[in-house]
Amino acid sequence: MLNAVKREIPDYIEGYGEVRHFKGAYASLDNRKKVGVNGRTVKPSNKLQPGDSKMVQSIEEILEKVNFHDGMTVSFHHHLRNGDYVLNMVMKVIHDKGFKDIHLAATGVFACHEPIVEYIKDGTITCVSCNYMSPGPVAKAITQGYLKKPAVFRSHGGRPRAVESGDLHVDVAFIAAPSCDEYGNVNGTHGKSACGVLSYIYPDAYYADHVVAVTDNLVPFPNCPIEITQDLVDYVYVVDSIGDPNGIVSGTTRVTTDPIGLKIANSAAQLLDEAGYIEDGMSFQTGAGGTSLAVAAGVRERMIKKGVVGSFGAGGVTAYIVQMLEEGLFRAIFDVQDFDLRSVASAGTNPKHMAMSGSLYGNPHSCGPVVNKLSIMILGATEVDVDFNVNVVTGSDGTIMGASGGHNDTAAGSKISIVVSNLLKGRLCLVRDRVTTVTSPGETIDVLVTDRGIAINPRRTDLLEKLKDSKLPIMTIEELKKIGEKLAGIPDPVEYTDHIVGVVEYRDGTVIDVVYEPKK
Amino acid sequence: MLNAVKREIPDYIEGYGEVRHFKGAYASLDNRKKVGVNGRTVKPSNKLQPGDSKMVQSIEEILEKVNFHDGMTVSFHHHLRNGDYVLNMVMKVIHDKGFKDIHLAATGVFACHEPIVEYIKDGTITCVSCNYMSPGPVAKAITQGYLKKPAVFRSHGGRPRAVESGDLHVDVAFIAAPSCDEYGNVNGTHGKSACGVLSYIYPDAYYADHVVAVTDNLVPFPNCPIEITQDLVDYVYVVDSIGDPNGIVSGTTRVTTDPIGLKIANSAAQLLDEAGYIEDGMSFQTGAGGTSLAVAAGVRERMIKKGVVGSFGAGGVTAYIVQMLEEGLFRAIFDVQDFDLRSVASAGTNPKHMAMSGSLYGNPHSCGPVVNKLSIMILGATEVDVDFNVNVVTGSDGTIMGASGGHNDTAAGSKISIVVSNLLKGRLCLVRDRVTTVTSPGETIDVLVTDRGIAINPRRTDLLEKLKDSKLPIMTIEELKKIGEKLAGIPDPVEYTDHIVGVVEYRDGTVIDVVYEPKK
Repeated sequence: MLNAVKREIPDYIEGYGEVRHFKGAYASLDNRKKVGVNGRTVKPSNKLQPGDSKMVQSIEEILEKVNFHDGMTVSFHHHLRNGDYVLNMVMKVIHDKGFKDIHLAATGVFACHEPIVEYIKDGTITCVSCNYMSPGPVAKAITQGYLKKPAVFRSHGGRPRAVESGDLHVDVAFIAAPSCDEYGNVNGTHGKSACGVLSYIYPDAYYADHVVAVTDNLVPFPNCPIEITQDLVDYVYVVDSIGDPNGIVSGTTRVTTDPIGLKIANSAAQLLDEAGYIEDGMSFQTGAGGTSLAVAAGVRERMIKKGVVGSFGAGGVTAYIVQMLEEGLFRAIFDVQDFDLRSVASAGTNPKHMAMSGSLYGNPHSCGPVVNKLSIMILGATEVDVDFNVNVVTGSDGTIMGASGGHNDTAAGSKISIVVSNLLKGRLCLVRDRVTTVTSPGETIDVLVTDRGIAINPRRTDLLEKLKDSKLPIMTIEELKKIGEKLAGIPDPVEYTDHIVGVVEYRDGTVIDVVYEPKK
Repeated sequence: MLNAVKREIPDYIEGYGEVRHFKGAYASLDNRKKVGVNGRTVKPSNKLQPGDSKMVQSIEEILEKVNFHDGMTVSFHHHLRNGDYVLNMVMKVIHDKGFKDIHLAATGVFACHEPIVEYIKDGTITCVSCNYMSPGPVAKAITQGYLKKPAVFRSHGGRPRAVESGDLHVDVAFIAAPSCDEYGNVNGTHGKSACGVLSYIYPDAYYADHVVAVTDNLVPFPNCPIEITQDLVDYVYVVDSIGDPNGIVSGTTRVTTDPIGLKIANSAAQLLDEAGYIEDGMSFQTGAGGTSLAVAAGVRERMIKKGVVGSFGAGGVTAYIVQMLEEGLFRAIFDVQDFDLRSVASAGTNPKHMAMSGSLYGNPHSCGPVVNKLSIMILGATEVDVDFNVNVVTGSDGTIMGASGGHNDTAAGSKISIVVSNLLKGRLCLVRDRVTTVTSPGETIDVLVTDRGIAINPRRTDLLEKLKDSKLPIMTIEELKKIGEKLAGIPDPVEYTDHIVGVVEYRDGTVIDVVYEPKK
């Protein structure tokens, strides 16, 4: 069937199942049920004998306790990013014990997870689902068709939606726990492997059949503060190290010094100002990239100049947003992950810097996620098409190199979503007739700001009207495309096999696109 | 059937249903399912039109939006205690609109809720369930048989268990919100009606079909800190006042100055010391009464003298426990409600003073509530029997005057539970052959400390051994009973009709006892 972003999607995908077709960003927002949970009971002391202990001595012991078997789904979270040891540690044992047909439901997959390529190739892992997949060996192996079932790419809000609705049933959730006590109270902001808040795994902690905290920092009871509480955690496993500090957080994240990046950022900030979005109560989210942070810098300047106090900064938090909170430019931060040391410290100490679950962040089937209250969202893109559809899943050669993360959640929820990018990316024009893979539908993308010009989604007649006298280089997206193509030429189309290697779910659980294996 | 505390309980109770019989405090701790939730979707702006608003103008409007009808269950929480306006406000409209057969599922019912006596008598309300019912007009009316179905008395842990298991399905939860924003982020620690944490209603916020925040303090988005998040709240209703500050919190809670109370408290503290419970890592909970606080004072002295650092204080928090936290005698507080101004302030500002949901506090069907980690619990009682069963539901004349609250949760979870009381209560001997109503089973009560002597549960051979050389006035409970009866005489037995006016559920959902209507 041709879906609402003009993609031909089969009704049934082998290894994925029945397809719910994408009908528009706001078309599947009816009431939904949250599924029941297989609760577990940990027994107290009866005064005479001790109560159940949660401490386990090995991953083997955990697998035995949960009656691990072929076909199970295990989940992990990616707050340790490219420094994570936990996923590899657990999957190695699962592999070595000979289990097969495992669904790896990680919130994110990084280059450091290279060892699982072998497990994909030998059938230990036959399905991978995630919200983010960094470029690297796993992404490459999946692109090349080694995974038996299609990978499923969700958004940061879509995954909790899937967990809560029962679409994604997790058998065993493994929580990388930078700080934990022997009864399973967990936080991510303290300890030698502190990584910040652990938001993406909160739903798994609630809904998984079994929950295991893996920690390298066992603290006296009670661990404090607590992000994931003891009443949800079955087992605590202590290891020497859960991650490599060098891979976990950047020491610092910095505003770009590249003049092109600064130009783009300044245009975006100026547009926001002219369009009236720099106002009391405004909220703001941006990524951790240098250009995105430069937009934050531009917004900050204008907030100070106007004496504006915003409501909240959200994210993916960086030192820059923390600074804006501390300067009083925002009343609060809503946080799902922390990118640098200052953010980690702030998340662990400042009560105005609030962790939010992945569900609170972006789950569309709730009484309103935080993205619904976002006024300004600054986004990236690998491709944008003339319908303003954005691709952040694949490169133009069809190689998997990302996933939505919060892209389509924030694009849908924000009052104004702006994609900032160089018009040329990897010697290709960013703007295409048709993006390789749709991640965020064009109806949720309002503006594209590039170094060569700015395009406003024609759907936003209000914005076009407000900016009609602007000196900003506003043009149509077709004009932008022409400029880019003139500079970079039009690439030859990539050819694909008919093997579906990835299914891209929109945040509401409908399929917005699929990824085919490129021909060799 | 004769249950494990020797109470003859029918297998079926009209208006309550099938009875699951009490089989022992630790006998029903198998794994249980948490029920699904009827999720609701609040729509975001689609960029062109505004998103759903949660603001409503009247209770009538709320009732209309939730399609209110006869037979529904509405829930309330009691953190505003005897100052609460919200329950009466809502029930008046439900009554005036002519709805019938309503189940009032309040976490607590107080004297201030007198107006609902009329609604009980006219059939508006046909069932009441609660964790606490203060002596007063509602308790009296229920004792006298005016409520059509038996009232159901649960514990603070048993109620969340019931909500999560589906035993107690709430149609509409009304949250009295001392601080709230227009998208439903709620806290209880700020605002003119600040009452402290709102823990008991957290499960309802998650599991109810509809959730309404009623506030007298609408703050700019986002309210911060957040106890109940926007993704769970459907509607926000602003009123002039949610409660009478004089009834909400005591200005101060104080250690008793009564010499008898001090004597009891000192005996309890001394016993704890001699039995080895004043040790590093210890945790402690007590009530807000003067004698209980005097035990805290005695424990504090001994902790300081020994240089002991405890893990946590829990409760029902008072200034005294806050002081112990601030002095470094505990590493943290786990809090379900705040009894005085200092506790409210601490709960709102000190990150070591942590709110816990009612479920995290005491739900036995979880991966371990906080009560499982409690070492010392100081309890009250209206009656204790020779099997150490405790009654806190009824007076000796059969009048309802309480409910478990956290009594049977903490008694079951703690390493040592001590009932402190004058041996004579209201001119009657506290110790009876048989308590009027069993709230907490004797196997969970370790010690009874009175002004006339101390009885240790013979089950605790370890305690008896440890204290065999103590100079404390330790005797059998039968001996204590004799002393009391010598002083007070043996009262005539109260006669009862066969009308069951209350069902007392143990924390695991089994029926531990029933309350009969006394003969006039």
